[in-house]
Amino acid sequence: MPSTARRAILYLLTAMTLLTSFRLKTQKVVFFGDSLTQLGARPGGYILRMKDALDKKNIGSDYDLIGAGIGGNKVYDLYLRMDDDVLAQNPDIVFIWVGVNDVWHKTMYGTGTDAEKFEKFYTAIINKCLDRHIRLFLVTPAVIGEKTDYTNQQDGDLNAYCQIIRNLAQKFHTGLVDLREIFHTYELKSNPGNKESGILTVDRVHLNDAGNQLVADSMLEALLSK
Amino acid sequence: MPSTARRAILYLLTAMTLLTSFRLKTQKVVFFGDSLTQLGARPGGYILRMKDALDKKNIGSDYDLIGAGIGGNKVYDLYLRMDDDVLAQNPDIVFIWVGVNDVWHKTMYGTGTDAEKFEKFYTAIINKCLDRHIRLFLVTPAVIGEKTDYTNQQDGDLNAYCQIIRNLAQKFHTGLVDLREIFHTYELKSNPGNKESGILTVDRVHLNDAGNQLVADSMLEALLSK
Amino acid sequence: MPSTARRAILYLLTAMTLLTSFRLKTQKVVFFGDSLTQLGARPGGYILRMKDALDKKNIGSDYDLIGAGIGGNKVYDLYLRMDDDVLAQNPDIVFIWVGVNDVWHKTMYGTGTDAEKFEKFYTAIINKCLDRHIRLFLVTPAVIGEKTDYTNQQDGDLNAYCQIIRNLAQKFHTGLVDLREIFHTYELKSNPGNKESGILTVDRVHLNDAGNQLVADSMLEALLSK
Amino acid sequence: MPSTARRAILYLLTAMTLLTSFRLKTQKVVFFGDSLTQLGARPGGYILRMKDALDKKNIGSDYDLIGAGIGGNKVYDLYLRMDDDVLAQNPDIVFIWVGVNDVWHKTMYGTGTDAEKFEKFYTAIINKCLDRHIRLFLVTPAVIGEKTDYTNQQDGDLNAYCQIIRNLAQKFHTGLVDLREIFHTYELKSNPGNKESGILTVDRVHLNDAGNQLVADSMLEALLSK
Repeated sequence: MPSTARRAILYLLTAMTLLTSFRLKTQKVVFFGDSLTQLGARPGGYILRMKDALDKKNIGSDYDLIGAGIGGNKVYDLYLRMDDDVLAQNPDIVFIWVGVNDVWHKTMYGTGTDAEKFEKFYTAIINKCLDRHIRLFLVTPAVIGEKTDYTNQQDGDLNAYCQIIRNLAQKFHTGLVDLREIFHTYELKSNPGNKESGILTVDRVHLNDAGNQLVADSMLEALLSK
Repeated sequence: MPSTARRAILYLLTAMTLLTSFRLKTQKVVFFGDSLTQLGARPGGYILRMKDALDKKNIGSDYDLIGAGIGGNKVYDLYLRMDDDVLAQNPDIVFIWVGVNDVWHKTMYGTGTDAEKFEKFYTAIINKCLDRHIRLFLVTPAVIGEKTDYTNQQDGDLNAYCQIIRNLAQKFHTGLVDLREIFHTYELKSNPGNKESGILTVDRVHLNDAGNQLVADSMLEALLSK
Repeated sequence: MPSTARRAILYLLTAMTLLTSFRLKTQKVVFFGDSLTQLGARPGGYILRMKDALDKKNIGSDYDLIGAGIGGNKVYDLYLRMDDDVLAQNPDIVFIWVGVNDVWHKTMYGTGTDAEKFEKFYTAIINKCLDRHIRLFLVTPAVIGEKTDYTNQQDGDLNAYCQIIRNLAQKFHTGLVDLREIFHTYELKSNPGNKESGILTVDRVHLNDAGNQLVADSMLEALLSK
Repeated sequence: MPSTARRAILYLLTAMTLLTSFRLKTQKVVFFGDSLTQLGARPGGYILRMKDALDKKNIGSDYDLIGAGIGGNKVYDLYLRMDDDVLAQNPDIVFIWVGVNDVWHKTMYGTGTDAEKFEKFYTAIINKCLDRHIRLFLVTPAVIGEKTDYTNQQDGDLNAYCQIIRNLAQKFHTGLVDLREIFHTYELKSNPGNKESGILTVDRVHLNDAGNQLVADSMLEALLSK
């Protein structure tokens, strides 16, 4: 066999090895958040729905989806446990979905998070992830109440915190899944009666089937985008 | 003189007397509210601006404008003092402008007013006034923060309380000065930078000159409408 | 029959009539308050326990005990409904027991009552009752949490509001049932483990059997005192 | 010179060197906290008073006192900045004084800290310090209001958070400067009028001269104790 051919075969084998190893490399995706994510990892939850969708596309083995949600968590709770619950897993991709409790707990328990502190802790989380070259998706909190005319008690505050998150996504060049926007658009179509729950949530906050599906679709689109 | 003519003159005199007495009857107008109204009665305030406008139209003597605003008042404070401060004056017309503190004090002191209680006390005030055949104008709270994209912390709650007031105006067939709407329309034009104060307020809540003028114009239009 | 005898008999009859009419005059007692009083009118509640105790003393017919408690009521809610729910009944005696929600709702909903407003509305209620010559008993809120070392979250605030009530009782020369003090003394003896509920309450606030009995005993002692 | 003598001299020199170096080893003491500590580093503040007292005892050069206080800080703010502001300085001793804002901000802004989270973050701070073999002193928050009869609004909550800190000091065998207790004892003697400020604070929270001196004395005693 001439050396050119041998060399060609060698290149081919190398290329195949590289491609194979590339294909086999499973992306570890951690969903980091509060009760919405904790529930998202249960049957019917948005994480399992994403898994199903990936399986149907025959790329289920490319992604390892891991829920890291704990009920009641605010942004500083994520910061406190991120070493143990996220970084220790050495993820390739992290979705950060937090903010509902930071706003909601202000009037509910007097223990919400100041906007300035919210941004500070969120930034600290982002920096720690980017230090590890983790691909990040920031996710805006969707709703506390589904009324479409901005008469839900926390709408103003929630809009403000979403804006903080959008600004951070832009500043740090991360991905963004703007569920606040996505839910609002959906509600304008599907909630003509201006109901405060029952369209995408069961109780103004936690997702029903339609809500979990909408989150799954939105996150999946982000995950599979370039 | 034929009796027909005498009768005609008699009728004419009677009509003139009636018209005169009607013209002379000064309408007592009480502005019932919180610090915005308390300040409205001071130089530069909206009540004095209304007085000036009425004088310029040469109908200043038709109306006696009386400020009854006390800083920090919520709806139940109005109810508590309405006998002494409003009904005792035997007014013809009352503008009720309250709601900012009911919403604002929730996060500021933990002492806001539940929506349900807000409606209950507001209704009680309306009923007491209507029992006395007072002409009522309900006024929606304008702003807590002037940002136009509904990212002011209390926007959601404030919108909800405004909706309660609009519904009450409709239910009881009272006048309505929808300052929430009027301010929002104004801000969309005049606050392109999405500032939180300085356009119509000095501090997100209390009125600057432009704010006092806009309130004066809006209330005057309502007062002089049929 | 000699006139002296006739006169004696007449006096006797008159005296009997007077005594009878005196005995027959039933005192109407209204218990005016929040959920604690609403529950107090149910089987096992403190009002029914007072009724039983009066029956055992054979003076049950001397008192008509009427519950006028509504869950969630704060001092201004009492003021709003006092004409309909209390004065309309033309009571001889009123127990006013309010304050837990005024303090508790501050952190729970952001809708508690400022101390200054608490005193103002309480004073207005007292004045309306005293105008009608109603015998008043002011009752201090007992507990929000049963821990004895003043580490219950609202202890400081609750102590302050109780002090307002004690001062009002002194100022207006009304009766006082100082349940705050009575409960504290009881807990010091019976709650060595510093538990936050289970001694006199089921849930830190609402009364268990022992709590209802202690309230019944305390109010009865006040009612039957000179 | 005989070798024994030479060896003796050598030992002596070595011993002197060791003793000298030991004497010269300055202890770095960081005061880690909120506005009380930020102000404590200013003229008249408790840290400078401690420095003066050490100088008077001729041991001023043994200790390097460093303020690390930032206004408005809650326990999680300390956790966020402890690497940069405390550990980076490689301190031998750290006083942790935090808690006032965690309690106070509940009703003031709706952004206080849940008791459970307070303990969690405090524990995380302690663990990070103990990993570095830093000698720790936990300091209880002194007062929010100086009234002595536990009628300051936050007394109950503040007592509870102090108890959490005392328990942590015991659990982790750290030092404890129980300013809550120390201030209360002082106030019982020096505040017979039950005033809410002016004895040890200027405004119910921030220290006046007497307050700064009492804190300096208390911390110094702890620092110099075995």
